[in-house]
Amino acid sequence: MDAKEMLRAHIAKHAMLTDPEYDYVFEHFKPLSFKKGQVIIQEGDQVNYEYFVITGCLKTFYINEDIKMHILQFAMPTWWASDYNALYTQSKATVNLDCITDVELLCLSNEDREKLCGEIHQLEHFFRWRTNGGYVASQKRLLSFMNNNAKTRYEELLQMYPQLYNLVPKHLIAAYLGVSRETLSRLYNAQKM
Amino acid sequence: MDAKEMLRAHIAKHAMLTDPEYDYVFEHFKPLSFKKGQVIIQEGDQVNYEYFVITGCLKTFYINEDIKMHILQFAMPTWWASDYNALYTQSKATVNLDCITDVELLCLSNEDREKLCGEIHQLEHFFRWRTNGGYVASQKRLLSFMNNNAKTRYEELLQMYPQLYNLVPKHLIAAYLGVSRETLSRLYNAQKM
Repeated sequence: MDAKEMLRAHIAKHAMLTDPEYDYVFEHFKPLSFKKGQVIIQEGDQVNYEYFVITGCLKTFYINEDIKMHILQFAMPTWWASDYNALYTQSKATVNLDCITDVELLCLSNEDREKLCGEIHQLEHFFRWRTNGGYVASQKRLLSFMNNNAKTRYEELLQMYPQLYNLVPKHLIAAYLGVSRETLSRLYNAQKM
Repeated sequence: MDAKEMLRAHIAKHAMLTDPEYDYVFEHFKPLSFKKGQVIIQEGDQVNYEYFVITGCLKTFYINEDIKMHILQFAMPTWWASDYNALYTQSKATVNLDCITDVELLCLSNEDREKLCGEIHQLEHFFRWRTNGGYVASQKRLLSFMNNNAKTRYEELLQMYPQLYNLVPKHLIAAYLGVSRETLSRLYNAQKM
């Protein structure tokens, strides 16, 4: 499936666009490639774009005062990523976005998203449900942080991203869970038994 | 300002509805009153409604395995509350919603929201931006939990809900911040100086 078909199948989960409507929408997406390790958004940047992942894996992360990295989200194929706080409120980025692997993305500007949503009601419907999904995932992650049980957080992570353990370096998985490398190994070995 | 005017002013921040459109939308909202301490949603419930606060204050919360309460959100006038995971995915409630004070609410069903969004493009636009705002707030709260600095969390809370300290019992504020009552007193006194 090529990038155009992937995005279409993704949108079709929530909205029905005609062929000419989809062709028009797709014209506003710009294909981009980045190499492993490249930085897409850095704290303090102006943020004007969001990214739909075609291949590879991104991470959004935050470095705290003690220079410890916390991972907010991994973005795999068909996931979206940006600093949405900065994007929606037109403020400076407070998180970073970079590439865990080589990636191919489709990129959409804030301005084009708003224009397209105003022109095509079904696309506005899609983006409402896209954000509903993000909101729910974010609330779940918050709950699991509050519950503060590393084992449950680990199981939820595997459920959400089944292939993650093979794709992503272990220290990044530990940074997502907020646990040490040793705790992660213990959880991994317990789960295999 | 009565309930109908409050909701209209709130929607008008993101969407323009004509008078007949707004009258039609408002017909789908049902006014409800609850007493302090009443439970609106309980873990395990089927969830079909979301609530717009006219007067008073709600909390969504979660009781973990150690019977410790964690507060996800306070909802003050013009805020919305529900178990959105349960509401959007039609699964059982995983959090609780109850009344910190006597409250007056407007209640909208899942079905009516979807029907109205399909009928009125501007209303779909409003709900998209309402959820965008919720998503951003949720990501911010997640970041501040990861950063794990009680002082910053306290300052962010006061910024988001300036009157909270006078309205809400101190043990609930501590449960929102994930700190002890003693830590909260220390933060409060430091801030007054």
